[in-house]
Amino acid sequence: MSRIGFIGLGIMGSPMAANLARAGHFVVGHDHKQPAMDRLVAAGGPGGRGRAAPSIADAVADAEIIVTMLPDSPQVEEVFADIRTARLRSAGSPAGLYIDFSTIKPETARSVAAAGAEIGLRVLDAPVSGGEAGAIAGTLSIMVGGEEADFDAARPVFEAVGKTFALVGPNGAGQVVKAANQIVVGGTYALVAEAIVLMERSGVDARAGLDMLAGGLAGSRILELKRETMLAREFKPGFRIDLHHKDMGIAISAARDAGVALPMAGLVAQLIAAARAQGYGSLDHSALLKVIESLNGTGAFNGQI
Amino acid sequence: MSRIGFIGLGIMGSPMAANLARAGHFVVGHDHKQPAMDRLVAAGGPGGRGRAAPSIADAVADAEIIVTMLPDSPQVEEVFADIRTARLRSAGSPAGLYIDFSTIKPETARSVAAAGAEIGLRVLDAPVSGGEAGAIAGTLSIMVGGEEADFDAARPVFEAVGKTFALVGPNGAGQVVKAANQIVVGGTYALVAEAIVLMERSGVDARAGLDMLAGGLAGSRILELKRETMLAREFKPGFRIDLHHKDMGIAISAARDAGVALPMAGLVAQLIAAARAQGYGSLDHSALLKVIESLNGTGAFNGQI
Amino acid sequence: MSRIGFIGLGIMGSPMAANLARAGHFVVGHDHKQPAMDRLVAAGGPGGRGRAAPSIADAVADAEIIVTMLPDSPQVEEVFADIRTARLRSAGSPAGLYIDFSTIKPETARSVAAAGAEIGLRVLDAPVSGGEAGAIAGTLSIMVGGEEADFDAARPVFEAVGKTFALVGPNGAGQVVKAANQIVVGGTYALVAEAIVLMERSGVDARAGLDMLAGGLAGSRILELKRETMLAREFKPGFRIDLHHKDMGIAISAARDAGVALPMAGLVAQLIAAARAQGYGSLDHSALLKVIESLNGTGAFNGQI
Amino acid sequence: MSRIGFIGLGIMGSPMAANLARAGHFVVGHDHKQPAMDRLVAAGGPGGRGRAAPSIADAVADAEIIVTMLPDSPQVEEVFADIRTARLRSAGSPAGLYIDFSTIKPETARSVAAAGAEIGLRVLDAPVSGGEAGAIAGTLSIMVGGEEADFDAARPVFEAVGKTFALVGPNGAGQVVKAANQIVVGGTYALVAEAIVLMERSGVDARAGLDMLAGGLAGSRILELKRETMLAREFKPGFRIDLHHKDMGIAISAARDAGVALPMAGLVAQLIAAARAQGYGSLDHSALLKVIESLNGTGAFNGQI
Repeated sequence: MSRIGFIGLGIMGSPMAANLARAGHFVVGHDHKQPAMDRLVAAGGPGGRGRAAPSIADAVADAEIIVTMLPDSPQVEEVFADIRTARLRSAGSPAGLYIDFSTIKPETARSVAAAGAEIGLRVLDAPVSGGEAGAIAGTLSIMVGGEEADFDAARPVFEAVGKTFALVGPNGAGQVVKAANQIVVGGTYALVAEAIVLMERSGVDARAGLDMLAGGLAGSRILELKRETMLAREFKPGFRIDLHHKDMGIAISAARDAGVALPMAGLVAQLIAAARAQGYGSLDHSALLKVIESLNGTGAFNGQI
Repeated sequence: MSRIGFIGLGIMGSPMAANLARAGHFVVGHDHKQPAMDRLVAAGGPGGRGRAAPSIADAVADAEIIVTMLPDSPQVEEVFADIRTARLRSAGSPAGLYIDFSTIKPETARSVAAAGAEIGLRVLDAPVSGGEAGAIAGTLSIMVGGEEADFDAARPVFEAVGKTFALVGPNGAGQVVKAANQIVVGGTYALVAEAIVLMERSGVDARAGLDMLAGGLAGSRILELKRETMLAREFKPGFRIDLHHKDMGIAISAARDAGVALPMAGLVAQLIAAARAQGYGSLDHSALLKVIESLNGTGAFNGQI
Repeated sequence: MSRIGFIGLGIMGSPMAANLARAGHFVVGHDHKQPAMDRLVAAGGPGGRGRAAPSIADAVADAEIIVTMLPDSPQVEEVFADIRTARLRSAGSPAGLYIDFSTIKPETARSVAAAGAEIGLRVLDAPVSGGEAGAIAGTLSIMVGGEEADFDAARPVFEAVGKTFALVGPNGAGQVVKAANQIVVGGTYALVAEAIVLMERSGVDARAGLDMLAGGLAGSRILELKRETMLAREFKPGFRIDLHHKDMGIAISAARDAGVALPMAGLVAQLIAAARAQGYGSLDHSALLKVIESLNGTGAFNGQI
Repeated sequence: MSRIGFIGLGIMGSPMAANLARAGHFVVGHDHKQPAMDRLVAAGGPGGRGRAAPSIADAVADAEIIVTMLPDSPQVEEVFADIRTARLRSAGSPAGLYIDFSTIKPETARSVAAAGAEIGLRVLDAPVSGGEAGAIAGTLSIMVGGEEADFDAARPVFEAVGKTFALVGPNGAGQVVKAANQIVVGGTYALVAEAIVLMERSGVDARAGLDMLAGGLAGSRILELKRETMLAREFKPGFRIDLHHKDMGIAISAARDAGVALPMAGLVAQLIAAARAQGYGSLDHSALLKVIESLNGTGAFNGQI
């Protein structure tokens, strides 16, 4: 069991930290919101495996493993700067492992890894998918970039918070795979949305049609899980458009950094940006359907079949 | 058991006709190629449930059910004109059912249905998915447009050639659903292709990355069945680019006829057109990967991670 | 001066026929609307150079030059069938020239040319640009496909209705150039629309910004003629979205027939389809701006600069 | 006449600084390359109106107006940090004007303006278009963001290096207009490229076709200046793909910061990225034609018209 310093106890980080404490680790958490820290203490139980730290420095000072779960690249850079300062001050701190679960730019992940190496931190980028439900259940999928030895050292952490995890390449590779994942997910929503609009406006039984699609080569996890709610126009998140928009920004940046051209991703990014511009930022990403609908006016099937 | 007149004994039609004969129907087939008709006779066995007709007129004269499986809209229009003439000549022909399994424009399907009604033919549009393998195994998916009573009457035919089938709306609806299916399938290939190129050019282990995608919300039948062959650049069809290109033409027409705008479908259609223009028409549709690769030059990962 | 049979006296055809009569030609016109024919008679003046014919057959029977100006490919095919019948009946009719000013599919233009050759008609496809104003002023641009000798023979006609005209290739080539023209025009509107939305939502003085664009490498006829009306959201046609939508259908077909992939055109076609689906079919094509605005919600500049 | 500190004497900056010296200003330039500074000294003539400074600090210490012309946002941030340090040290330095001619993110322009205000610098963002030729001739177009009084104070500088210049809004607005400009320019190249490929592959005389387009509503500065070189496949820059790729990155960022969705820009950015990925980074941006050609294979017109 390890001493873990955990920074970022938000919607995702909070249940992940709790799961680490339940798995027997000693988790010292820090967040700028007090209730988030109180929840960790409660989750840690009478054995005190959850503890709140008044600052980032306090959280990481004695940690064997440092974990962050933050909104975006700038926050990771800021928090890392604090981690760096804290580690440099406490000369005797154990040579440690730093796992960043945030979804950020591959480039930022690489530069944090390089900066970590300079102060004796072995860094893994480890973005997750599975959402809040997966974080609570401890069944996240984790895409890991870094060294194999470090990946092996991090296994107990991954096992406590996730169900599927794999090393997919050197530092930054986890973020690239997450970017690829978000391109495919966003694009599939857009395609399913177009299929729905085409069928509905053509006077077709869209439910029966989607059932056919779901059963054949067009089948996907999204059709399986979301076709009923999309047909019913229920867009309660789930994963918010705002977050997918952020992730598409990362994906487009990642493509640029890799020097690759991705026409589908370029269009998907703009459609998701439209969802946000239209005011649907806090709806589920399946609300991409509303963008395709808006392109096609408000009218229903025109009756001419 | 019915007397079935079957026009179009090609790659798909031939095994479908054979399955109908094996299921006990009497199938009189016609094709412009003699070997195709010989195969049907052989499949009909010693009981003579497969028979070759020298003309379309002979094939349909006494049929209770007429079936066509043809390449595209113009062929369906031509063959239907012959069917019409034949039916008008043989005044005593049974009031019949006409099932068109071809993938054609919804608009053509609707006009054939209207023209069929004028001569006492009840028409179903019933495009399939599942490819040659599905046709041989009798496990096709069938999307049916037409009247419910006619759909019920056609069940024995569908059961002999398919595994999943559903009535999805009035005439033309089967074709609309097939169009929607091809949009989603083509688009998913393009998205997976972009994911692969992004990962490979970023120095990521693309196999491990695709495994992660396949296991999460990005998961799809295509990732399940095709990721290994795509990574290995094996593009033996399967379903040819040429055919998917034809189907995207139908999909774009269907959107136009329905008065809907589908930006993703518009781009996917052009990417598939590019695959054909680049000379990959006879490869599997997963060869869309070659288009995304060509956009990105011939170079491999540039080593800068 | 020639005897001209003119079929299709609509918004474009009517002033074109009048200009031919004014230039000294004898124009026998036919249209399914009587007032259109009355206008031609009036335009022909006391010399009787404008005359109304009760049928297509009457209009073309004695014509040295046949001219059509029709909405789309099917109408050209129908009218040509009538022309063909009329010419076959009147055995002594002069070997003639047939100029089709309609904007139709290149493929249809080629098949009409081939069918014309069989009955001794030398055919030119000659789609125009310049709109109603250009038709009235006799300043149309004319893109001509066909044989050089026929192009030379048609010069007096082109000079009466147009200002710029050129032979751009064999039959069908005029239509291909018109298709290319509509791709560039539609695409430029979409680009200018995006420029406007970006500037306005960023708190920029869009008028001053467009002035800068118009004066540099981004400059275009569209920026020159339409930026003020676009900024003022005045979308009185001009050239209607419905017609540009029809033309994009031709352009996408032309690309398909030529075996080429055009990603920009594919997207532009869908954006124009969206304008129509949103109910803007009878507005000027510059109303593409409304589609880009709709993608971005109704809100104005958010004040955060 | 002003004392001007000029940082960044590259392809653009060098002739701009020379033009300022020729106009009578005293220009103290700095660049990390010595020959660039030697050229400025030479351009300043015997009157010594061009001088080289060994450091940024030396260049700006006594300047009434500071000017930068740098490759991208990070360089502007770095140089500004040095300017800031130098100004804070020399307490008596004149309250000054800072004009940044670089093309950078609007967001960076806004933060530099805010940071400048804190140290008494009034900042204008003033990206240019017109290329090396325009810089040498002193005929650049300049899009200026900032306060009107500062714009007026900067007029003598703008008059020495440019021909057209306008205040288009508050800080950052100049960059937004430049971004809009690059979207329209890049998109127009892509549209013209598609027009060329469609015409050539259809057996049309593309030169005659482009002449028609250039004379009508499809006309543009690009068609006017570049159609001959594009037809001849001469792609000597001019403005390099690499730079336009950089600018599209800024444009996509600017749209994201403004919260707007721009589907055409999204696709254009990827096509330009493809040009770079295919190895054409150092060619003129009209080489976008090579991307559209590559999508369509190597074959010429297939002879089927």
